Amino acid sequence: RLLPVIMALSCNFSVGVNLTDFNFFFPQNGTKKFWDFMRTHDSVSILIFNTSRQCFVVVKQFRPAVYMCEVERHHPEVFQNQNKESFPSLENPLPAVVGVTYELCAGIVDKPGLSLEEIACEEILEECGYRVSTADLRRITSYRSGVGVTGSRQTLFYAEVNDQMRSSGGGGQPEEGELIEVVEIPLGESMKFAYDETFPKTMGVIFSFMWFHNNIAPKLPKK
Amino acid sequence: RLLPVIMALSCNFSVGVNLTDFNFFFPQNGTKKFWDFMRTHDSVSILIFNTSRQCFVVVKQFRPAVYMCEVERHHPEVFQNQNKESFPSLENPLPAVVGVTYELCAGIVDKPGLSLEEIACEEILEECGYRVSTADLRRITSYRSGVGVTGSRQTLFYAEVNDQMRSSGGGGQPEEGELIEVVEIPLGESMKFAYDETFPKTMGVIFSFMWFHNNIAPKLPKK
Repeated sequence: RLLPVIMALSCNFSVGVNLTDFNFFFPQNGTKKFWDFMRTHDSVSILIFNTSRQCFVVVKQFRPAVYMCEVERHHPEVFQNQNKESFPSLENPLPAVVGVTYELCAGIVDKPGLSLEEIACEEILEECGYRVSTADLRRITSYRSGVGVTGSRQTLFYAEVNDQMRSSGGGGQPEEGELIEVVEIPLGESMKFAYDETFPKTMGVIFSFMWFHNNIAPKLPKK
Repeated sequence: RLLPVIMALSCNFSVGVNLTDFNFFFPQNGTKKFWDFMRTHDSVSILIFNTSRQCFVVVKQFRPAVYMCEVERHHPEVFQNQNKESFPSLENPLPAVVGVTYELCAGIVDKPGLSLEEIACEEILEECGYRVSTADLRRITSYRSGVGVTGSRQTLFYAEVNDQMRSSGGGGQPEEGELIEVVEIPLGESMKFAYDETFPKTMGVIFSFMWFHNNIAPKLPKK
């Protein structure tokens, strides 16, 4: 039986995403093993389907981590001197669009007084501008995300909305640095979109679109 | 248009998972924004179906990050003094089983000379013990994983295997600290397993099982 021993806690408090780094080591088969992980919050994500216009409502946002992956892919030299205090400047930086991804509406669970459903409803309103009550949410399932690094639990919900429930344009909270574009994906094009790798997206988008086609689409009233 | 500026590179080199931490900030709407991210490798994951026994082959392993999430959930006091150099010891540490997850066979892309397919075949052999050639792999799709933290690209493959292709028990590379248990999930129970939240798993497992049921199962020869 593995018995992890929590040992040391390290350096980095991060502004912006509320992550903290920890190291710990645990004995595994008699040898010491170190592991880094990032402390993150559990999260919720929501597949939103607008019945008025028969489309999915997803968000599109700039992701620094995705952008940096692309920088490394195209300019590996930037990362080669990892001990230096600063990166060299790039003469031709990549355009920000390479860091943009399509994602489900989502949010972290950081308010102890609220249920997962209440947090999901807040995110739907803030990011996408629809007023949804917790009774309108259907829980799809939960799973572990980023098991190598964060290990937090994500719970996926489904919400049906219509144009009457729209109260704002959404777009996140600019004062918290969120810059979110609400994007509608027509139902008829959704599986093509899901498997088109030229639109960078999370697995949550692909999985939930497929879930909808298996579980909801067969019961939709014919228009 | 957002134009990220790469600025500072920070502290943590990690043993075990080959991650490095970076911070950078970028101007967004005129304000400076910091963001932490972890540098990780792209990865491959493989849905493996054994036709001899009509079952999926997945792996089960202890994940330190998942374990630490559970420690925090059950013993939040451990994380409260984040400036201390060491954690308090727990009198009754959680059993390691709370950090175990079911996952697809997977591996990181860290060998520049090898294609994604070649790396996938190596992982299938190392982790699950089956000899598969790259021609036997079917690419399902790719997506971004952990967009908040890592942003790396993961490519998902499908591989059909049979008992004659099994050359070892798998189990990973103990010299690299991998302790992996190979688990077979019978096809007939697979969707029940996928949605049973008492088995902690990644979204990759749920998504790929559903993909199989939509795309492969209808074409399987009746046994």
